[in-house]
Amino acid sequence: MSNNSEIPVAGNGLLNRRIFLKAGAVSSAALLINHASAQTQSGWMNVPGAGLSESSAASKYETELRRVAIGAETGTTGSGVSRSPLPYLDGIITPSRLHFERHHSGIPDIDPDKHELIIHGLVDRPLKFSMDHLARYRTVSRIQFLECAGNSLRLLYPEALQTTCSHIHGLVSASEWGGVPLSTLLDEVGVNPKGKWLVASGADSAKMSRSVPLEKIMDDAIVALYQNGEPLRPANGYPLRLFLPGWEGNMSVKWLHTLKIVDQPAMTKDETSKYSDLLANGQTRLFSYPMEVKSVITSPAPELVMKEKGVYQISGIAWSGRGKIKRVEISADGGNSWAEAALDEHVLPICLTRFRSAWRWNGGPAVIMSRATDMEGNIQPTRRVVLQGRAPNAFDHCNAIQAWQVNSNGKVNNVYA
Amino acid sequence: MSNNSEIPVAGNGLLNRRIFLKAGAVSSAALLINHASAQTQSGWMNVPGAGLSESSAASKYETELRRVAIGAETGTTGSGVSRSPLPYLDGIITPSRLHFERHHSGIPDIDPDKHELIIHGLVDRPLKFSMDHLARYRTVSRIQFLECAGNSLRLLYPEALQTTCSHIHGLVSASEWGGVPLSTLLDEVGVNPKGKWLVASGADSAKMSRSVPLEKIMDDAIVALYQNGEPLRPANGYPLRLFLPGWEGNMSVKWLHTLKIVDQPAMTKDETSKYSDLLANGQTRLFSYPMEVKSVITSPAPELVMKEKGVYQISGIAWSGRGKIKRVEISADGGNSWAEAALDEHVLPICLTRFRSAWRWNGGPAVIMSRATDMEGNIQPTRRVVLQGRAPNAFDHCNAIQAWQVNSNGKVNNVYA
Repeated sequence: MSNNSEIPVAGNGLLNRRIFLKAGAVSSAALLINHASAQTQSGWMNVPGAGLSESSAASKYETELRRVAIGAETGTTGSGVSRSPLPYLDGIITPSRLHFERHHSGIPDIDPDKHELIIHGLVDRPLKFSMDHLARYRTVSRIQFLECAGNSLRLLYPEALQTTCSHIHGLVSASEWGGVPLSTLLDEVGVNPKGKWLVASGADSAKMSRSVPLEKIMDDAIVALYQNGEPLRPANGYPLRLFLPGWEGNMSVKWLHTLKIVDQPAMTKDETSKYSDLLANGQTRLFSYPMEVKSVITSPAPELVMKEKGVYQISGIAWSGRGKIKRVEISADGGNSWAEAALDEHVLPICLTRFRSAWRWNGGPAVIMSRATDMEGNIQPTRRVVLQGRAPNAFDHCNAIQAWQVNSNGKVNNVYA
Repeated sequence: MSNNSEIPVAGNGLLNRRIFLKAGAVSSAALLINHASAQTQSGWMNVPGAGLSESSAASKYETELRRVAIGAETGTTGSGVSRSPLPYLDGIITPSRLHFERHHSGIPDIDPDKHELIIHGLVDRPLKFSMDHLARYRTVSRIQFLECAGNSLRLLYPEALQTTCSHIHGLVSASEWGGVPLSTLLDEVGVNPKGKWLVASGADSAKMSRSVPLEKIMDDAIVALYQNGEPLRPANGYPLRLFLPGWEGNMSVKWLHTLKIVDQPAMTKDETSKYSDLLANGQTRLFSYPMEVKSVITSPAPELVMKEKGVYQISGIAWSGRGKIKRVEISADGGNSWAEAALDEHVLPICLTRFRSAWRWNGGPAVIMSRATDMEGNIQPTRRVVLQGRAPNAFDHCNAIQAWQVNSNGKVNNVYA
């Protein structure tokens, strides 16, 4: 069959997106059969299957569908992180059970009938809300990403760490988040004109606390009650969490308990000793809120082995805390040439966007990279640019381009290109 | 405080949507506190919480998060249905474990390494695809609903059945579906000009088989591999299913095994003895594919009890197999007057759309209803219209308006209004 349609659009085998719609592009992937062999009979076709149930589980064959690279701080079981298994996922939704975790003192076991949200400080009428009270307010829902400030910090190590895609980048997930706009609740309490900031505190024993400017609260903050259509899971803040679209994950305080309106930032431990950025000049940058434009190829990735040369789909996720993704470019020659990837149908603001490119792997070594641009025109930077001006031990907010080395044996590894 | 902002927009307490943004609308829902009581200390705030894990579960307090109204046909465990618990969900995504089930011989236990997709019949090159082969093709993803043809059939009973919202309407769910456009695979096999239909068959022991016009296949059919970001669960067709956006659910054949290109419909048992519509004139309507415009209020609902009079959020879902939802109207006076509901941000084609209205319940009896209109201008019909021309035992494709009676004691029940 003809390969006339297989037009290279960038170096080392990146193909025109239209290749996906042309016959023959990947037909070596399928086997020619005769009609007799259409009569396959597997054992499961001849016996009744399993019964109906209250809840579906994943297939027992999908053994990689679990959070990975679980790291608890010494002496604790619940202070640390677990990561989403990115190369085994597709699309833009992260199943709730596989959403990354970052806790500072484990997951509290909260009885929703005994939990309250308290709003006080510089307000006309301090109020407390039970979960039943909150359920009567107008709710909104949006599909948006959440990313830990420390995601991808391993890209800033002096030497390229040989580890998995999930270990490096798995502290980002996306969900449908549903809840009550916090602006509605602030209208209820009546904010004093001197109130400029809000201090949000959780009901975990770490009492995670962050200061948030009221402008952000009035813009798009919600008190989230639902994740992916159902009540939040305890690991994501049940029965309610703050959700601040596009801002570093720790500010979306889980197990939300109190909101205090104040006139200036509270300088809590969680915004001075943690989640502040040390600079090369010896100073510290505080309040670096938005997660900047970023992308990563999740297939191929170190977790997956390429079995034979031929046409493959390069797939990955892109996101920006500042709005929609405008464009993702792919290189298969270490950044010498780039081609634009196709984006899946739903390109939503402040959400993971799935991108795809066609690539004919010739079986030789290749360095593949992705580079995202958001609607504000921000372009994902190189590792070199991200490192500029940082102190050597400042690792948060790394949005550097990831390069994967595909080797002749089909294995993939992290490389600085 | 003033209730000047509380402008009625339709009879019996339906309020202007802007009420949600005005102070005082629901402040009876919250309790005034003094600053001392902001110092609440619950037990879970003083001890480390649970540790990190490979997978998050739902809260033990959310005991209603399970599929309900499970009905297996006599003598079987796997031929029948289970339903999504609609009043306990919010937003537009259905968690995969709670997606409704409809099986004809249970859930086969399929080893993906031994499963193949075979495309044969009127084609140039019959091909078989392993799961590894399929993984190399371009994938797409979209968030769309799936509804069983028989959903809501209980609304056509002669007397209003006293049961739950989930029992009547729980055979609809929405997911992000990801997979390979079937048009790509048909390009690979080369369809003979005589080929006009495709017969899709599953690998379950019922060998579920449906005929599909090639126009639909080339338009938007996919071979789905992913649901809500992860591989399909066995109850939804693992390792692959056909997915036909907007068409009656049984045509999206699960555990997809063979696709045969033919020149006319195959008249399988699943499209003659089942999934055909008996008419009042003694004839049968075959091939009624799209699921028509529809909506249902999921809160209030028979599962939920209203505790006190006051302002509530009326919330529900609307969908159409023919495209996007344009408008949802709500009545709180049994259909005498209607007001337009607010729609959540993501109004996607062929997807559940979440709607909300503000309602001040005066504590007396009220009949609430929702009525959806899609972008084609189709309006959800009354029960009376849906019944026209049907044989008495024809129950599929019921998209009638649901009326809920709210009683003075706060209980809610199904009523024909």
